[in-house]
Amino acid sequence: FTSKLPNLATSIFTEMSMMANQYQAINLSQGFPEFDTPAFLKDKINLAISEGKNQYSPSNGLPELLTQVAAMVHRQYQTDLSTEQKLDGLKNVTITSGATEALWVAIQTLVRPDDEVIIFDPAYDSYEPAIELAGGVCRHIALDAPSYAINWSLVEQTINEKTRAIIVNSPHNPTGSILSAADLSSLQALLEKYDLYLISDEVYEHMTFDGLRHESVLRYPDLFKRAFVVSSFGKTFHCTGWKMGYCAAPDALTVEFRKIHQYVTFCSFTPAQIAIAQMLKEHPEHITELSSFYQQKRDLLINALKDSRFNMLPSKGTYFLLLDYSAISALNDREFCQWLTKEVGVAAIPLSPLYPVDKRESYHQNNKVIRLCFAKNDDTLLKAAGILCQL
Amino acid sequence: FTSKLPNLATSIFTEMSMMANQYQAINLSQGFPEFDTPAFLKDKINLAISEGKNQYSPSNGLPELLTQVAAMVHRQYQTDLSTEQKLDGLKNVTITSGATEALWVAIQTLVRPDDEVIIFDPAYDSYEPAIELAGGVCRHIALDAPSYAINWSLVEQTINEKTRAIIVNSPHNPTGSILSAADLSSLQALLEKYDLYLISDEVYEHMTFDGLRHESVLRYPDLFKRAFVVSSFGKTFHCTGWKMGYCAAPDALTVEFRKIHQYVTFCSFTPAQIAIAQMLKEHPEHITELSSFYQQKRDLLINALKDSRFNMLPSKGTYFLLLDYSAISALNDREFCQWLTKEVGVAAIPLSPLYPVDKRESYHQNNKVIRLCFAKNDDTLLKAAGILCQL
Ligand SMILES: CSCCC(=O)C(=O)O
Ligand SMILES: CSCCC(=O)C(=O)O
Repeated sequence: FTSKLPNLATSIFTEMSMMANQYQAINLSQGFPEFDTPAFLKDKINLAISEGKNQYSPSNGLPELLTQVAAMVHRQYQTDLSTEQKLDGLKNVTITSGATEALWVAIQTLVRPDDEVIIFDPAYDSYEPAIELAGGVCRHIALDAPSYAINWSLVEQTINEKTRAIIVNSPHNPTGSILSAADLSSLQALLEKYDLYLISDEVYEHMTFDGLRHESVLRYPDLFKRAFVVSSFGKTFHCTGWKMGYCAAPDALTVEFRKIHQYVTFCSFTPAQIAIAQMLKEHPEHITELSSFYQQKRDLLINALKDSRFNMLPSKGTYFLLLDYSAISALNDREFCQWLTKEVGVAAIPLSPLYPVDKRESYHQNNKVIRLCFAKNDDTLLKAAGILCQL
Repeated sequence: FTSKLPNLATSIFTEMSMMANQYQAINLSQGFPEFDTPAFLKDKINLAISEGKNQYSPSNGLPELLTQVAAMVHRQYQTDLSTEQKLDGLKNVTITSGATEALWVAIQTLVRPDDEVIIFDPAYDSYEPAIELAGGVCRHIALDAPSYAINWSLVEQTINEKTRAIIVNSPHNPTGSILSAADLSSLQALLEKYDLYLISDEVYEHMTFDGLRHESVLRYPDLFKRAFVVSSFGKTFHCTGWKMGYCAAPDALTVEFRKIHQYVTFCSFTPAQIAIAQMLKEHPEHITELSSFYQQKRDLLINALKDSRFNMLPSKGTYFLLLDYSAISALNDREFCQWLTKEVGVAAIPLSPLYPVDKRESYHQNNKVIRLCFAKNDDTLLKAAGILCQL
């Protein structure tokens, strides 16, 4: 049986989590919280299940959830939205089975055979296979440490008549870098000049640090016009296993997105939709407090690692921190992570699998960086840092 | 924005359920149970949520669920499986976000640009867009009332060097027909002769009537070799809103299926996986009693409609019954269903949307058939039948 994805195997997140379990390492690899989803949300989902709300929701999502998502967007980002372009949940939001499904469907909606899509490396590993299976071609642009900033003139040089879309991700997984208002304005100029579309992966939208503001595409009506904005309830509400996300897009794009979504999963877990709608409505403070919640964890980890031989890179958002280990080991990042998991007892994610296959060798020569997830209890972080400080 | 699916709109199931709600009609259109999922399953899922099992499962599914699915398959279908080909849950089963995702991923795994796939009309509406988005072409073969049996020599005439796969669905939605052992042997001969693959949509596998046995592809090792077998926990356990399904396939096909699945949804709702694994293990009788449970409902509906002017077609499986309304109205089936919903107060599904666009006109001239879902409480079925008997 010939594979449509011959270069691909199990994702690095699965691989490292399995290895962490096998060797009983502290798992700072795959990104998921060690702590639980809020009690309010658990109570509400349990109630919805008990009350028998266990059948299909509408394919787009429950109307009350769509409306609450739009209300949350207005609360978070309203200052820059003009009245006539307010997001209408019923028309512009679609609930998906995780942000992964939203990304998949947005890519299937946009990308036609031979279309090119620009992505920035290191890139979340679902973008490229989704683009390839739609018949498209990925054009990769590498981001460089320590800032991992986008060079917009390089982007413009990469654009040609086949370019269909650009995928950006801010706050950025795995690097923790974020896009500035100036970045978005460079992006908008290119989208308009070359008539391109945008997929904006904002799953860490509510986790930015040091007072930095998340520059959501939803703040910028002229950018939003051409965009699919993807986000994740799993990341925001500490329930990655519920697989709940959404896509916000203008009317015409949403119509096409929904056509495909209805044939990919049809709809998402109904009781979770009921519970999340109530959470958004009754506990808006969960979201406004999330940045400081994660900033404390980032700072705790940074502080606990300050006497280690790792060189910490800046993390402005997400729940990830990059560590340069070049003072410690000459292994490449994949080998180093395997060694760390098996021999040292801490699992981390190597960055090279988030670069295209043909660039991994040269990447290895110049980069010795791994990713830690700090969405963990403080004692877990302290314990892992204690171990890492011995290296 | 140019659509990749210009001929498609919202699915007929969504359209009719929305109309049913709007006009407060008894909703016998979209297929979902009116009654709730078993209390055991609700207790177990609530417990898993309360206990904090709310993060990602492995992408393939929780091992205990994969194992329980394989055990269930062996209980149900073991007589025909040889020992060395026993299904291994960990290698051959993948949990998906509903059977819809399983169908989608199986199609993306199999179908390459310009490949042809044979499907039988009336067909579940997700097959064709999934095939088209993979770059493939649908070859349609119509099934004819009242038996809706497959003419295998017509299938052989349709096969050519571009043919990649055949999709069968038994028990068949919307007609309630089922494939016999002879059908499967004709199918196997064609698959082997022309080196084709099979997608077997068996979401109603546990609902066959009058003592008829479900001829699962899982009973036939030589057929299974070339097959993706898709099923649904939502249908079996009355929880369509949980969006839980699975795909069983041989090792090599499963490897490719999982590569794509991990980028479509990554994994499915973790607490539901925990609960369903326990349900399969501790309540096997739920499955063995399902056929008689639904047969009683089918018979109740048939009996209640026997004095109506509808002509009932045989339903051998599924939770659907077809009614010929040619003695009642000259409207086409879509118009008839709209009228029935708005003016009469009973929502049903027209069959013409399950035929290709270019065949709908000729279909309308010869066919006046609608689908009722009888997965409803007895009093609902009696009330609807009472209304329909007045026509
Ligand atoms: C869906 S598994 C990957 C989780 C995640 O977002 C990450 O670890 O980067
Ligand atoms: C996913 S909506 C369709 C439900 C169903 O299987 C049907 O009504 O045929």
